[in-house]
Amino acid sequence: MRAEVVAVGTELLLGQIVDTNSAWIGERLALSGIDCNFQTRVGDNVVRIASALRSALGRNEAVIICGGLGPTQDDLTREAIALVMDAPLRRDAAVLKTIRDRFVPRGSSRTMPANNEQQADVPEGATVIPQTMGTAPGLICPVGDKVMYALPGVPYEMHDMMERAVLPDLRRRSGQAAVIRSRTLKTWGYSESGLAELVAGRVEALEAGGPGVPTIAFLASGIEGIKLRLTVKAADDDTANKALDAEEAELRALVGEAVFGVDEETMEGAVGRLLLERGWSLGVAESLTGGLVAARVVGVPGASEWFRGAVVAYDVGVKRSVLGVADGPVVTHEAAAAMAEGARRVLGANVGLATTGVAGPAEQEGRTVGTVVVGLALPGSVPHAVELRLPGDRERVRQLATISALNVLRRRLCATGGGT
Amino acid sequence: MRAEVVAVGTELLLGQIVDTNSAWIGERLALSGIDCNFQTRVGDNVVRIASALRSALGRNEAVIICGGLGPTQDDLTREAIALVMDAPLRRDAAVLKTIRDRFVPRGSSRTMPANNEQQADVPEGATVIPQTMGTAPGLICPVGDKVMYALPGVPYEMHDMMERAVLPDLRRRSGQAAVIRSRTLKTWGYSESGLAELVAGRVEALEAGGPGVPTIAFLASGIEGIKLRLTVKAADDDTANKALDAEEAELRALVGEAVFGVDEETMEGAVGRLLLERGWSLGVAESLTGGLVAARVVGVPGASEWFRGAVVAYDVGVKRSVLGVADGPVVTHEAAAAMAEGARRVLGANVGLATTGVAGPAEQEGRTVGTVVVGLALPGSVPHAVELRLPGDRERVRQLATISALNVLRRRLCATGGGT
Repeated sequence: MRAEVVAVGTELLLGQIVDTNSAWIGERLALSGIDCNFQTRVGDNVVRIASALRSALGRNEAVIICGGLGPTQDDLTREAIALVMDAPLRRDAAVLKTIRDRFVPRGSSRTMPANNEQQADVPEGATVIPQTMGTAPGLICPVGDKVMYALPGVPYEMHDMMERAVLPDLRRRSGQAAVIRSRTLKTWGYSESGLAELVAGRVEALEAGGPGVPTIAFLASGIEGIKLRLTVKAADDDTANKALDAEEAELRALVGEAVFGVDEETMEGAVGRLLLERGWSLGVAESLTGGLVAARVVGVPGASEWFRGAVVAYDVGVKRSVLGVADGPVVTHEAAAAMAEGARRVLGANVGLATTGVAGPAEQEGRTVGTVVVGLALPGSVPHAVELRLPGDRERVRQLATISALNVLRRRLCATGGGT
Repeated sequence: MRAEVVAVGTELLLGQIVDTNSAWIGERLALSGIDCNFQTRVGDNVVRIASALRSALGRNEAVIICGGLGPTQDDLTREAIALVMDAPLRRDAAVLKTIRDRFVPRGSSRTMPANNEQQADVPEGATVIPQTMGTAPGLICPVGDKVMYALPGVPYEMHDMMERAVLPDLRRRSGQAAVIRSRTLKTWGYSESGLAELVAGRVEALEAGGPGVPTIAFLASGIEGIKLRLTVKAADDDTANKALDAEEAELRALVGEAVFGVDEETMEGAVGRLLLERGWSLGVAESLTGGLVAARVVGVPGASEWFRGAVVAYDVGVKRSVLGVADGPVVTHEAAAAMAEGARRVLGANVGLATTGVAGPAEQEGRTVGTVVVGLALPGSVPHAVELRLPGDRERVRQLATISALNVLRRRLCATGGGT
C-alpha cells in the first residue's frame, strides 16, 4: 500500500508557512506500515491541484490532501477533487446545518458569512468525515479502486481526522490485520555512533526480523539527545506491548541511566518526578543559560509542587550580591557550587542547581567557548560541581547547557536513591 | 521563469525531519520574482528521484534539488541527475583535492574515508558550485535550455550556495534586469484585521502597481506579532530603497509605535537599544513567564551591557522573601509593581520589569486564565502596572505574556524620551 501526501496552499510555496503537516502524516503512515514515496506541495490553483492529484493517483493507491478546504475563494481543493473524480459538487444539507450551528450559537443573532456555505459542497460519490472541531468536514473520495482523502490544513483538525477516519480506512484497505506499535527511549550523553556501538548486539539479534520482532531506529534529535525508536508489528496490542517491554528491558540493561524518558517524557519532567519522589523542592541559579533552565522547568505540568524559582545572575555583581559568590573568577567549580548553595538558600529550596560558563562568542577568564560548569547543592552533602565541554555557537551552547544541567541533576538524584 | 524545488531524503518522508529548506527556497524565489508552483519531496531511491526530476523539468524552466549529496550509499542525487542528463559521472580531481584538504588538516595523520570520494563525482556537462563550508560541492546541470541545480541539504551550506550561485544564475537566465527588494515592518498590538483597516488607504493607493510601486503583504507570525512586508521591483538598488523608505514613512505615520522593529530586529533587541540610549540597566522579576523574558533578553548580542539578571519567583514565598511583595493576592497591580521595584532593588538595576498572571489550566485568586499584569519601575517615577488579557493555552499565554511585557517596557521607554 502506497500513499502520497499533497499539501495545498500558496503560502507553503512562498515560505510563509513551513509544511509540518506532511512530516506528521509521513510519520503516522510509516507507523501504520504504509509506504510514502513522494510528497507534493501545490499552490491555490485548481488546474495545478488537479494535475498534482492525477500524478499522485498514477503512482499510488491512496492520496492524502491537506489544506484548501476553507471558506475563501482561494480554497479550491473540493473543486479540484470534483474535476479528478469527474463528478459534480453537491451541497450537503446535513453538513451545511452543522456548519451553521457552529457559527450561530443557540439564541445568538450572529449570521454565517455566505462564503462558508461552500464548505458543505461534496463531490458526488464521496463520503464525509464529520467535523468535530473546525467548520470544514473531511472527504473520502474513491476513484476506481484507489482513494483520495481531503483534510483541513489546521494541524489539530487534521490530526483528529487522520486518527479517527483516514488511518483506520487505509489499514482496512491495505488488509493490514496486524497492529504496529512503537516506543521511543530518549537518551542523553552518548553520540549517535557511541550509542550504536553500545546496542550493536541487540540490532544484530533483531536483524532476522519477522512478526513480533521489533526493529530499532536511531533518531538524532539535536539538543534533545538521541532517541531509540522500537517498532513492532504483531497480531494484537497485547503481543506488541510485550515485545516492546522485553526489548526495552534489554536496551536499558545496555544503556542504563542514559535513558531519561520514554515517549513524551521530557528531561525536566524526569527531574520533577525524581524530586517529588524525594519530597524535595528545587531552586536554580543561572548565568550563561539566562533563564532557559527555569523556562523549561515551569513547562512541566504541576511544577509548582516542587519548583521554587530561579535567580538569573547574568551580571557578575548579581552573583556576588544575591547569591553570595566570593570575589574571583566565576567560571569555576567553586563559583558554580556557591551559586547552587546560594540558590538553595535565597529561594528556600531543598536542592540548588546552578549553571555558569562561556557561551561565546569570545572566551572569558581564559576559559574557551563551550566550557560549562554545573553546580549542585543537595541536602546532607557538600555543594559540588561538574565541568562539561559543549560544542556549537552561542545559542547552541546555551541550549545544550540547559538540558545538560538538568541531566547532571537527574543522574545525581538517581544515585542518591528514591523515596523518603 | 518557473522553478520547482525537489527535496531529497527518506527522513523527510518519514517525518523525522521537517523540510524547512523548501520553505526557505520558496521565499527567496518569490523575492527574486521567480514563480514556484510545485514543491516535491522524494526518498533516497535513484529511480524515484530521477522520475521526480523529469516531472519537474517537464513543467518548469529550472529545478532546485536539495539533499542527497552526502558521502553514504543513500546519497543518490548525483546518480539521478546523471540519469536525467543521460551523461556519465566523472570524478573531478580539483573537487576531490578540496574534499581531501578539508578532511586532513595540514600535518595531520587523519585519513579521509573512501566514501567521501563519491562527493567529487560530477555529471559530464555540469558546472561545480565550489563548497566553502561542507564537503559536498553544488552542481549546475544544464538540460537543453533548462537547468537543474543540486545543493546540500544542510541548511547553512544550502543558503550559502543559493545566495552565491543559484539566485544570480536564475536571475541572469530569466533576463530579470530589475532588482526586487523587500523590507519587513514588525508590529505588535494589532490583530491582522485591525492592522488591515488601519493601512487600508495605503493598500488602495498602491493597488495600481507598476515598476517602482511597492506592494504590501500581511504576514501573521503567531507570538511574534503581525509583519507588514513591503516588496518593490525597480531599476536599481537605490531606486528600490527610496521607494521602500517612502512607503515605510507612510505606514509608520498610520501604525506609529506598533512598529517595534525592521527586518531582523527583535522585540528584545529594540528594548535593549532604547535602554542603551538612556544608559539604563534592566532587572526582571518573572512569575508566570518563568524565565522566558530573561531567556529572550540574553539572546540579544551585547545584552551584558544592559542586562543585570532576573528573579524567577514562581513560588509565592519567593515573591515575598526575595522581592518584598506584601501579603495578599499576587495577580494584582500592586503585586506586579512591587515585583518590578523588588527586581530593581535586588538586582541593582535602573529599570525593573515584572510579570505576574494566570497561565492556566485553572483560574487563580478568582482571576481568569490569560490575565497578565506587567509591572514597571523606572528611575524618577512611581512603580506601576498594566493589565492584559491574553488568549490561548498555558504555553501560548506564557509566550504572549513574554513578548507583551517587553512591549509594555518598549512603549514606556519610547514615551519617556531618548538620550541622556
